[in-house]
Amino acid sequence: MNFGFLLFHDLEELDFVGPWEIMNVWRIYANGPNCLTVSEKKGEIVCAKGLKLIAEYSFEDCPALDYLLIPGGKGRKQEMHNQTLLNFVKNQSKNCKQIASVCTGAFILHSAGLLQNKLATTHWSSLEELRALKDVNVEEKRFVRTGNVWTAAGISAGIDMALAIIAEEAGEETAGQVQLYAEYYPDNKRYGSAHKNEKAPAYVK
Amino acid sequence: MNFGFLLFHDLEELDFVGPWEIMNVWRIYANGPNCLTVSEKKGEIVCAKGLKLIAEYSFEDCPALDYLLIPGGKGRKQEMHNQTLLNFVKNQSKNCKQIASVCTGAFILHSAGLLQNKLATTHWSSLEELRALKDVNVEEKRFVRTGNVWTAAGISAGIDMALAIIAEEAGEETAGQVQLYAEYYPDNKRYGSAHKNEKAPAYVK
Repeated sequence: MNFGFLLFHDLEELDFVGPWEIMNVWRIYANGPNCLTVSEKKGEIVCAKGLKLIAEYSFEDCPALDYLLIPGGKGRKQEMHNQTLLNFVKNQSKNCKQIASVCTGAFILHSAGLLQNKLATTHWSSLEELRALKDVNVEEKRFVRTGNVWTAAGISAGIDMALAIIAEEAGEETAGQVQLYAEYYPDNKRYGSAHKNEKAPAYVK
Repeated sequence: MNFGFLLFHDLEELDFVGPWEIMNVWRIYANGPNCLTVSEKKGEIVCAKGLKLIAEYSFEDCPALDYLLIPGGKGRKQEMHNQTLLNFVKNQSKNCKQIASVCTGAFILHSAGLLQNKLATTHWSSLEELRALKDVNVEEKRFVRTGNVWTAAGISAGIDMALAIIAEEAGEETAGQVQLYAEYYPDNKRYGSAHKNEKAPAYVK
């Protein structure tokens, strides 16, 4: 089994690395799928906040994927119109057990024709844009799914979604073991008043 | 102001990228410090779970740091005996406003002489090893601090610590804005029974 993480320039670092960490813990401690990075051309990727990563596979030499995760970040504005990337997503998704986006990666899923008439969410600052697509049922939750297509809200929400995908695929006990290893028991403190912002998503209020 | 993130082979990906994301959001949206990556030699770093990163600065050309964060991961077992790395940490820490470790990065802080007689924590599976050092006051919390030296528990706990450091340096409202941008309002679900493991840290129970 192969879990592919789609990389592109100006992706948001934690959108990708949160689920990457969680899925690799699943791989190592509970026999989860092999995890790999893939981008249009293999090699250096400069992320939205400046981190430089190296993508291992190109679209040409990427093996068949059983799982696919698409991060967001400002680079999605270009990639949602990149037909080569959209074709890769479309073709790989046909055989995927689960397909997921984090944050504004939802717009790439939509451009690839995978989000029509499904529940979906995205980063709170892009909810309006997601609603304006008209053919998506937006829910302001930490993550939502319709069938095998999952979308997470902004940035860190990908971690919660990743654990839920493991629970779905390998059961709650396995998800719990991964959660313990990654010590994902946040203290849930809310700083200041920002979460009362009228644009904050419903699940935060 | 410069916030340095120490990279080394076999670091744990989320230990580093969680705080990297949070501190960069601080930089971009609320005038936080410049964020940079530094390792003994600049260039490719292969992380514990296989992700390849590129470190921008070497120890030689790294600017003076005002903040320093040290991730953990299995690579720390080698790096806690690497005198070149320990000297870099010692020398840079003299002028740092805040110094922090995530997960087993605490053992590097200790080897650099920065954790003696201070409160500290680490990944739950290494708490015993931290206690055995005798000269550290172990507390099983999500993160702890003594003065300007901070340590976080395993992997994802670095995100909570990063927000607390921002609250300390720039106030609760700024920390709240960063938290909203990163949507760090986890759903706090506990999967299965792993968190009841007798080795799970006190704050989880």
